[in-house]
Amino acid sequence: MSILIKRVRLNGETKDIFIEGNRIKEIGDLPDLKADEEITGEGKAAVPSFINGHTHAAMTLLRGYADDMPLKEWLETKIWVVEAHMTEEDVYWGTKLACLEMIKAGTTFFNDMYWHWRGTARAVQEMGIRGAISAVFIDLFDTKKTREQIALNEKLYAGREAFGSRVVFTLGPHAIYTVSEEALRWCAAFAQAKGLLVHFHLAETEEEVNRCLEAHGVRPVRYLEQIGFLGPHLIACHCVWLDEDDMDILKAHGVRVVHNPTSNMKLTVGGVFPYPQLRGRGVITALGTDGCASNNNLDMLEAAKLASLLQKFHTGDPVVMPAREALEMITVEGARAFGLESGLIEAGMWADIALVDLDTPQLTPHFHLASDLIYAANGSCVDTLICDGRILMRGRRVEGEEEIMAKAREKAFALVKRAAG
Amino acid sequence: MSILIKRVRLNGETKDIFIEGNRIKEIGDLPDLKADEEITGEGKAAVPSFINGHTHAAMTLLRGYADDMPLKEWLETKIWVVEAHMTEEDVYWGTKLACLEMIKAGTTFFNDMYWHWRGTARAVQEMGIRGAISAVFIDLFDTKKTREQIALNEKLYAGREAFGSRVVFTLGPHAIYTVSEEALRWCAAFAQAKGLLVHFHLAETEEEVNRCLEAHGVRPVRYLEQIGFLGPHLIACHCVWLDEDDMDILKAHGVRVVHNPTSNMKLTVGGVFPYPQLRGRGVITALGTDGCASNNNLDMLEAAKLASLLQKFHTGDPVVMPAREALEMITVEGARAFGLESGLIEAGMWADIALVDLDTPQLTPHFHLASDLIYAANGSCVDTLICDGRILMRGRRVEGEEEIMAKAREKAFALVKRAAG
Repeated sequence: MSILIKRVRLNGETKDIFIEGNRIKEIGDLPDLKADEEITGEGKAAVPSFINGHTHAAMTLLRGYADDMPLKEWLETKIWVVEAHMTEEDVYWGTKLACLEMIKAGTTFFNDMYWHWRGTARAVQEMGIRGAISAVFIDLFDTKKTREQIALNEKLYAGREAFGSRVVFTLGPHAIYTVSEEALRWCAAFAQAKGLLVHFHLAETEEEVNRCLEAHGVRPVRYLEQIGFLGPHLIACHCVWLDEDDMDILKAHGVRVVHNPTSNMKLTVGGVFPYPQLRGRGVITALGTDGCASNNNLDMLEAAKLASLLQKFHTGDPVVMPAREALEMITVEGARAFGLESGLIEAGMWADIALVDLDTPQLTPHFHLASDLIYAANGSCVDTLICDGRILMRGRRVEGEEEIMAKAREKAFALVKRAAG
Repeated sequence: MSILIKRVRLNGETKDIFIEGNRIKEIGDLPDLKADEEITGEGKAAVPSFINGHTHAAMTLLRGYADDMPLKEWLETKIWVVEAHMTEEDVYWGTKLACLEMIKAGTTFFNDMYWHWRGTARAVQEMGIRGAISAVFIDLFDTKKTREQIALNEKLYAGREAFGSRVVFTLGPHAIYTVSEEALRWCAAFAQAKGLLVHFHLAETEEEVNRCLEAHGVRPVRYLEQIGFLGPHLIACHCVWLDEDDMDILKAHGVRVVHNPTSNMKLTVGGVFPYPQLRGRGVITALGTDGCASNNNLDMLEAAKLASLLQKFHTGDPVVMPAREALEMITVEGARAFGLESGLIEAGMWADIALVDLDTPQLTPHFHLASDLIYAANGSCVDTLICDGRILMRGRRVEGEEEIMAKAREKAFALVKRAAG
């Protein structure tokens, strides 16, 4: 299978992009080439499709179910109550809705942590995008649960290949306040032995830091270093409450971090991701949306705009995180964080490409692509999406979208009804 | 001319909405009614169309032209240089682009301050939306300029009716640091005599407050009170740097305020609009986008999301400015601020209505309309827009949109080229 994108804007020039199998084969002026599928690039710009560094995809089912509540009440009386009633089928449909939403906003990879791993994996496999998927690992310091969770993860790991190459199995220990030291040590060892990524919530709130200081006498990052949890396999999400030592340690161990500006603001975590300090150290930094109960969408262009505005506002420096850097965080830096052969449109890379419709008011007059994408546009400017050499959206149409929305709606309302008893 | 919107979701029920002339005539179950135009409301929700409380519409031409620069350098080497070369024709096409963008994001009213008043007015008249339009009034404390500006405003006022009922003439004294006391006094008196609104930038930066303290020995709000500038005719935009006394004074004089969260964050004004304190006093509060050089779009749903997130983040209270309040700020509260007979879908009100497409991933599953609109969606969820009893967009198509984008693009690039000399 081959695809030819004809006469598309790419890095300020008009080019043809030839895709063969799942990779970009050639870029240039290719008037004589023929391909199985041809896409006209007129009025469009090609950009690397986006990378969502942190989400809980199936939480689309809880979008708007309970907003504007104090955090503890929100979790205890709403979110956890409903999650306890979720089935694999719910997670499957919730993730299909999430994948649909991501496709329509230009995203082809997401890093996920949620319940019912197989439901998520099945949805990703069918929808054609890529997912690094972890099962939430929570043992609440109960050794029986630790053993169960380890057994579950070993089993999921053994069966991972059934879901194809776009599904990447990862480990998902939730956070230091929900996972025992024994389990964290097991995760790090298993990840290193098998070459897996570890998806983790780190330093999201001040309370987490204070509790760790009480329990271990050190801050979370130091505690994790002491138990051998850190390394380039670690995807540390949030990282709001870091001090200078913490950042040195993260850098020294090659940890990758994911900032979730919208969720941080909506859940009022108090602090601000220390972007200039982490970037100054050369820490690889991606962006994420977090789940739809705390955002409430999966639009990476919106997340990037918010990240940039929040940094400017917080630092008082209008030059911090310029549009180009924000765009890199959701493309090439995101790809570095997760070891993906994407994030750049170059021969040899995976064919993971978004075509942006330049005939959109928010992209007019169009002086600078990065500025327009980050500050003016949102995900709805994406017209066409290609992942792994397959066209997933064309003219903003995704196959089966009405059925996915209808089924997700049905599952969400039934779930909430069940949870209400 | 009559329009019947059949079987549409309205406040949680399914209703028919009958429009005659430019007003909503009847709402209910109206199976036997016939109208000149029928719109199926299936899969759609009707909401009052949005109100943009502060912008400089024609700055769409400068969208993305110069971002990520220090404020002073940005203004002095880029924005002001280009604006000096703008013609009425540029403003006309820039405003047409702005109106197109607003229509596509559900907005039917905007409050504008810019150069070449007639260019803006002509664009609004043609595009079918409503604009409260002021000519930027800046005299830089030069009495010759004061006289010129007064003469210009008297002339524009005299000719205002040529542009029809959707164009509302307002006065636009820029700010205390660019307009003399004599001119401010004239604006207040002229506004009161003729029943006009006054569009003003107030307390946007700390520097403005400090300079006023140096020059007048009082803060800006007190200074304006002393010279008789305050009243219910005043639309005070930004209002970031207010103290408790300032807010009491604004409330006592019935001043209406407009918050511009995106612009405040992007331009790093340092403070945060004191929303809980103003709301607690019952001050009428609307939202605005500001111009496209400092946002960089005109999407009121995005502005409302940012306003809510910024308040939550700043106050540490996840319950502040809930979705319903944010939605009210861009509908019914905005209408109160500007004295519009819109912002509510009720019999007798102007027929200014947006139909939102509920078959959109970001509005699925759809537990709460306000939550979904503010936290999950953006302007692209609007399918149909009616203003003043006319259908301006249907199925996301606006008449002449390609030509408007092409012309605005041409004007913008020619302008920048001219400015570069």
